[in-house]
Amino acid sequence: MFQTFEEAGSSAESASRVDRLRTVLSQAGVDGFLVPRADEFQGEYIPANAERLRWLTGFTGSAGHAVVFPDRAYAFSDGRYTVQLGAQLDGKVFAASDSTKTTLPDFLKENAQGLKIGFDPWLHTVGEVAALRKAASEAGFELVALSRNPIDLVWQDRPAAPATKARVHSERYAGRSAKEKLAVIDAEMAKSNAALCVLSDPTTTAWVLNLRGSDVPHTPLVLAFALLRRGEKPILFLDPARLDAEDRGALEDQVELAAPESFERTLRSLAANTRVMLDPTRAARRIADIVESSGGEVVEARDPAILPRARKNEIEIAGSRAAHLRDGAAIVSFLAWLDAQPVGSLTEIDAASKLADIRAAFGEKDGMALRDISFDTISAAGPNAALPHYRVTTASNRRIEGGTVYLVDSGGQYDDGTTDITRTIAIGAPAAEIARAFTLVLKGMIAISRARFPKGTRGSELDPLARIALWKAGMDFAHGTGHGVGSFLSVHEGPQSISRRGVTPLEAGMIVSNEPGYYREGAFGIRIENLLLTLPAEPVPGGDLPMHGFETLTFAPIDRRLIVAQLLDAEERSWLDAYHAEVVRRTAPLLDEADATWLRGVARPLED
Amino acid sequence: MFQTFEEAGSSAESASRVDRLRTVLSQAGVDGFLVPRADEFQGEYIPANAERLRWLTGFTGSAGHAVVFPDRAYAFSDGRYTVQLGAQLDGKVFAASDSTKTTLPDFLKENAQGLKIGFDPWLHTVGEVAALRKAASEAGFELVALSRNPIDLVWQDRPAAPATKARVHSERYAGRSAKEKLAVIDAEMAKSNAALCVLSDPTTTAWVLNLRGSDVPHTPLVLAFALLRRGEKPILFLDPARLDAEDRGALEDQVELAAPESFERTLRSLAANTRVMLDPTRAARRIADIVESSGGEVVEARDPAILPRARKNEIEIAGSRAAHLRDGAAIVSFLAWLDAQPVGSLTEIDAASKLADIRAAFGEKDGMALRDISFDTISAAGPNAALPHYRVTTASNRRIEGGTVYLVDSGGQYDDGTTDITRTIAIGAPAAEIARAFTLVLKGMIAISRARFPKGTRGSELDPLARIALWKAGMDFAHGTGHGVGSFLSVHEGPQSISRRGVTPLEAGMIVSNEPGYYREGAFGIRIENLLLTLPAEPVPGGDLPMHGFETLTFAPIDRRLIVAQLLDAEERSWLDAYHAEVVRRTAPLLDEADATWLRGVARPLED
Repeated sequence: MFQTFEEAGSSAESASRVDRLRTVLSQAGVDGFLVPRADEFQGEYIPANAERLRWLTGFTGSAGHAVVFPDRAYAFSDGRYTVQLGAQLDGKVFAASDSTKTTLPDFLKENAQGLKIGFDPWLHTVGEVAALRKAASEAGFELVALSRNPIDLVWQDRPAAPATKARVHSERYAGRSAKEKLAVIDAEMAKSNAALCVLSDPTTTAWVLNLRGSDVPHTPLVLAFALLRRGEKPILFLDPARLDAEDRGALEDQVELAAPESFERTLRSLAANTRVMLDPTRAARRIADIVESSGGEVVEARDPAILPRARKNEIEIAGSRAAHLRDGAAIVSFLAWLDAQPVGSLTEIDAASKLADIRAAFGEKDGMALRDISFDTISAAGPNAALPHYRVTTASNRRIEGGTVYLVDSGGQYDDGTTDITRTIAIGAPAAEIARAFTLVLKGMIAISRARFPKGTRGSELDPLARIALWKAGMDFAHGTGHGVGSFLSVHEGPQSISRRGVTPLEAGMIVSNEPGYYREGAFGIRIENLLLTLPAEPVPGGDLPMHGFETLTFAPIDRRLIVAQLLDAEERSWLDAYHAEVVRRTAPLLDEADATWLRGVARPLED
Repeated sequence: MFQTFEEAGSSAESASRVDRLRTVLSQAGVDGFLVPRADEFQGEYIPANAERLRWLTGFTGSAGHAVVFPDRAYAFSDGRYTVQLGAQLDGKVFAASDSTKTTLPDFLKENAQGLKIGFDPWLHTVGEVAALRKAASEAGFELVALSRNPIDLVWQDRPAAPATKARVHSERYAGRSAKEKLAVIDAEMAKSNAALCVLSDPTTTAWVLNLRGSDVPHTPLVLAFALLRRGEKPILFLDPARLDAEDRGALEDQVELAAPESFERTLRSLAANTRVMLDPTRAARRIADIVESSGGEVVEARDPAILPRARKNEIEIAGSRAAHLRDGAAIVSFLAWLDAQPVGSLTEIDAASKLADIRAAFGEKDGMALRDISFDTISAAGPNAALPHYRVTTASNRRIEGGTVYLVDSGGQYDDGTTDITRTIAIGAPAAEIARAFTLVLKGMIAISRARFPKGTRGSELDPLARIALWKAGMDFAHGTGHGVGSFLSVHEGPQSISRRGVTPLEAGMIVSNEPGYYREGAFGIRIENLLLTLPAEPVPGGDLPMHGFETLTFAPIDRRLIVAQLLDAEERSWLDAYHAEVVRRTAPLLDEADATWLRGVARPLED
């Protein structure tokens, strides 16, 4: 199994843990301490030994931070987790707060005047520490970088650091050799006149060196730093025992392996009198401290792998198409199964478990194992679906009742690609207002699918197309329309996105999700998601500009029972019918006869 | 007259001027020098004594810079000025280059290795110098701040600094007293814990102190620095002789007047051991140098007037509506006159001159004098209209021939408001492809006019609505859809805009232009522009979000002869007919009978 549906965190021990932490803080001579949900690699997923926020507060959400003062303590997360945060904290120990309403620097400006606030410089980026320092100087408090994380001093039974099998990701899927990729990074170093580049982000190390592992859930990463030197072999700080002999040999053709413990020492010796490139939004402040205290000069530059990684090559594109057909067929089979179950007979966990089983079976049948699911499945019934980032646990698990919609957002990690798909399904006979909202969301989803836009257009410029139909009805959704997706890597991969923050032009080869939604708190939630591949568009007569458009990668039916056909215009209907015809054409050959028959029924044209 | 239609600049003296400059540079011990088009106030318009780029190169465009090396010299501007730059430079002295393709820092990285490059720290912002320093450190060249601008040493007959009459802008138009505005700034200083704030931007000083003048063309500014102290009267560095006795008395209730020459000395003495707030994107580097060398600490923060100035108050809104009716009536009268002239009988200058006369006459009639035009009128026929920022000169002046379109983009400065309007007019019988392009542009302009969007939506999210119809046809325009507009202040006023860079949410009271276009190089150009006021929108049934929308401020007919009616959908036609009915209802009472009759004809419903 890939998913645990674990219990919500327990806050029973919070009070004693915070007490012990305060004792250590007082010994360290600080008044307070910052506890971000981060490890020294600053990624989206962190291993169990870095779950300090969870250990201290009981909060299990994927984003947040805590601040502990001598007499008060606060835990923050964003709007996605308001309810969960309140439920998981011990209210006598922590006050819950919204991180989007008060940023950490602003909170400290209000609350930390005159205090000494400790922080672990491995757990905050260069950019974050700069913002904290500005706040400290404005409000008059002191920031103290601690050499040892005080939580680690009081955390008994802390798990060990992960050391899963690391393996070479075959060029058969990656499409380009580590050597070619290293040349790209080297050219960026030359532009910045840097002799050394710190790869602090494991997704970058994974891409550059064609390296994969399982150190964190759902993203196939090896947590390891690397140092790139101009004209010399890179150094990868990875225990060689984590590699099979064959992979080790292949990797050592490209890199020098060194013990993880030697990273700081090696960086110190290489950084002296050297310009050292690092990404201030991704590298821990501690890395910059090491460089500067060794007499090196930090050159702040964007992680040089980000853009080339986002432009998928032909091999990766072919892999993604194949992964999506296999994954789409699994979804069809799951939806057929779901449709056959008596209304009210399933829970959210029943459905998510069945989906994982079906995905694994389709992977096996296709000879391309499901390596992992690409994130914890969002399996949400009724009001749970109104939480866009809902994650079912044994405590929240809800029965999928009739008269509402069931939302399932899931994906798979295969060697040839990463998938991510959402469907919202009618259970029994949902109310007319749900069908109306579904249709308005669908209009936005079709507008993005059909978009034509000049080369150079940014994702932020497409995002509104997904919202215009909702805006006219006085509605909206409070998340971006889509995120970039990796190739057997992160399911959330920048720099491109279709969102307010999507300042990166969409280039040929970039994969993005297209997932508008609508959420009515306490009632229902809707989201429809396909992945799209950006490609040059065919010219139209009279058009004088090079244009781009999208190829849809995801093939699975959209629930016709929720579509109010008269709200769609002729072009939208024709897009939907053509899409459904393609779903049948492409996935039916991978399905058994019963599922294929079911699919032909639900994918028939709207007019039928 | 408000406009000179001057000759294109002459490059005849460039060679000798550059020679003299090089002699001074060599005496100053530097190899090169940067010549931006900027003065120490960093505004859009600069006075004649600051036209150093023009004096040196002959280039008269509104944006650009030059770099002079011992053996080579380069002049840069953006795509708007490619042709003009090439025509105005002496090609034997300056190589022309595109500043959007190579930024100044990147250019120096390529071309200045090993050299000492001088610059005048009064003429570059804090942010610009930071980028230059980064380039210098990466590429290995030296930046040398010069204490005296070397051009000033060799510029004979340099004009004197402007010292026009300064006057108090009545609260009857401003709607809020200087005292109220100073309290807003004071609160921002408190947030940044700053004891001193440098007002370096004259548009900020104008707004905060309700002060106006005529130191630069088209924007009613007094070029003067001010220093704000918490809890004490601000100091305005303005020669009291520039004020009438009454205005001087009123102003001295609010501020302490000091001689402009005393600015540096006063800043030095106040900055010591003090946190000094300034906007790094607007303040000259020299100001930060003064603060730092006096033992002060620079606190970088956004100019605190920007947001409150953008949110127009009720008095300003009422003023803007009145100004737009008066200005719209003048436009109707101009269009009626234009329509009556024989095809081919007018030049671009003839038309622009007539428009200025009519605007002045309508202002006089309405008892609200036209203080200035709000920018040099773009009066463009045929291929000249394909240059979005075309400015007619005696050299470029073109006859308005039949079979094409004439584009006129113009505005007025009145005490009660600033206007900006563009109309594109059929001359004779333009080709079908021009009408098709006009209609696609109109569809975008209507989409913005009719937009409904959630409170908090940014201008960047509306920009694509103006382009979707063009994108579908493989077309686009290479400028933003709209800019903010001031209240008897800058016609380009931030922070809001409808453009890629429009990250500011559109709030109630913000005025923006709505001006999509289409330009075919060497052939024709189209632009249609109204100003819009952002307001809360009426709720719609079932809509659960607070929405905003626009009130159209500009009333003048849109040329029906260029509209392909079958390309508009029912809602677009109904918007256009309703708009034209309002144009008649609102402006006809201000027109003489002949013009009113003409208007009723051209503003009749599309179906007629």
